[in-house]
Amino acid sequence: MIDTVAAWRKALDAERAAGRNVGLVPTMGALHAGHASLVAAAARDCEVVGVTVFVNPLQFGAHEDLDAYPRTLDADVALAEANGAGYVFAPSVTEMYPGPVKTTVAVADITTRWEGAHRPGHFDGVGTVVTKLLSQAGPCRAYFGEKDYQQLAIVRRLVTDLSIAAEIVGCPIVRETDGLALSSRNVRLTPEEREVAPALHRALLAGAAAFESGSGPEDVERAMGEVLSAQPLLEVDYAVARDPFTLDLPASDPRELRLLVAARLGSVRLIDNLGVVAQPLVATS
Amino acid sequence: MIDTVAAWRKALDAERAAGRNVGLVPTMGALHAGHASLVAAAARDCEVVGVTVFVNPLQFGAHEDLDAYPRTLDADVALAEANGAGYVFAPSVTEMYPGPVKTTVAVADITTRWEGAHRPGHFDGVGTVVTKLLSQAGPCRAYFGEKDYQQLAIVRRLVTDLSIAAEIVGCPIVRETDGLALSSRNVRLTPEEREVAPALHRALLAGAAAFESGSGPEDVERAMGEVLSAQPLLEVDYAVARDPFTLDLPASDPRELRLLVAARLGSVRLIDNLGVVAQPLVATS
Repeated sequence: MIDTVAAWRKALDAERAAGRNVGLVPTMGALHAGHASLVAAAARDCEVVGVTVFVNPLQFGAHEDLDAYPRTLDADVALAEANGAGYVFAPSVTEMYPGPVKTTVAVADITTRWEGAHRPGHFDGVGTVVTKLLSQAGPCRAYFGEKDYQQLAIVRRLVTDLSIAAEIVGCPIVRETDGLALSSRNVRLTPEEREVAPALHRALLAGAAAFESGSGPEDVERAMGEVLSAQPLLEVDYAVARDPFTLDLPASDPRELRLLVAARLGSVRLIDNLGVVAQPLVATS
Repeated sequence: MIDTVAAWRKALDAERAAGRNVGLVPTMGALHAGHASLVAAAARDCEVVGVTVFVNPLQFGAHEDLDAYPRTLDADVALAEANGAGYVFAPSVTEMYPGPVKTTVAVADITTRWEGAHRPGHFDGVGTVVTKLLSQAGPCRAYFGEKDYQQLAIVRRLVTDLSIAAEIVGCPIVRETDGLALSSRNVRLTPEEREVAPALHRALLAGAAAFESGSGPEDVERAMGEVLSAQPLLEVDYAVARDPFTLDLPASDPRELRLLVAARLGSVRLIDNLGVVAQPLVATS
């Protein structure tokens, strides 16, 4: 386990100098099977894999409980190594931010909606720390889960806009057998809520089916909404069909859409998403 | 001359792979003896030097005449090579920004004062393009003139905050024999204004003398102000004594100050600055 930026940079520079491609998996720790799939994907593609574990204070709001975020470093290191990671970089907050941070990497438009509206300033913190983690790691392929699809779109955007030498790879959502997307929050669901939770995935599938049978984005959204509103315990935040790259409103006759949903279930907020492509009519992830 | 990001990155990666240190001199072209001194400094320190020439639209305001900014690429290439540059990278605007730019690298506090107040949004454009140019170039020493001292402080700050693999080197201001700092704007001064212009440098020297004789920051600023106000043609914008790193108000008994002045002279806005260090009582740059 590496805990200084200097040692981390030196280790990855040495790997590249030896001709090995570097795969990077940035995480906030508390690793579960979803993260394991990112590490495993990186290990399939790259000759050496580094996992970063850093709970980034910049992306927590004043009312969010940064201190309560789970820290399970020993288990994280074990899971990372078991899935093919050669290095784990777990810096302290002081190592990452020795003084007050004055610089912000902000992405316009895409950051203010949905999860950004729910957590003001959150994506500025994400953009800043991802830029910093990619600068520290140097040229690499960096693996992010499609579960946080809006975050993935923001990371792709800033990497393009700033010409950062990283190839961003989005990895499919890992699901329970009943379709519920893996999340560390799922353990906080009551048994009754846990029964209801797969409705998010069913709503996405209903939207995908509507798209595949020729419906436009508005009807796709309506199909998702109908599945969600049939569940009285679910408080829907959004259920939208968007352009998969910009997350803007889709073109009038889109060939591809990303369907995104968020809903509150008791004390837990759940998100999920699904990609749909017209002809040859397959759903991705 | 290289005009694509891919070729530029490949060239500098190959130089580093061959064990050579890369020196980078980012410019907006229209190179003069001040820029030549940056290239020469880079060539003294580094085994290979790359000069970038890019007039960055992001750092021009809506009312500023981007199109009128001088373009002298052939002369720039000749000057760069004559001073030791091995490469000149001069991308088109389309090559740098193939689509609309959504990402902004903003530095708080330091960007809003003085030159930032004079040109709102300017330093966000500078921060964004410098981050992008450093990402494209990869690990290097990057040379910036102290003439734009506030810009230099902003670049130092964002490189630290984002862990960018570049060492930022500030280079001394190049002056005419009468002390006037070199600037492409100087040619726009009338003969009468040209006579008055060295008052900025004299004001800095008066501030330095006051500091060396034991005055505090306020008296240093007063000493500068007296020299400037003796010139009726000068319309003073600011004359301040600040901490050299943060550009915040200095500590109560500072060992080091940066003196910064700006004034309008006819149609031309002039800026200048000087570093002063207490004991052993020498003025730098």
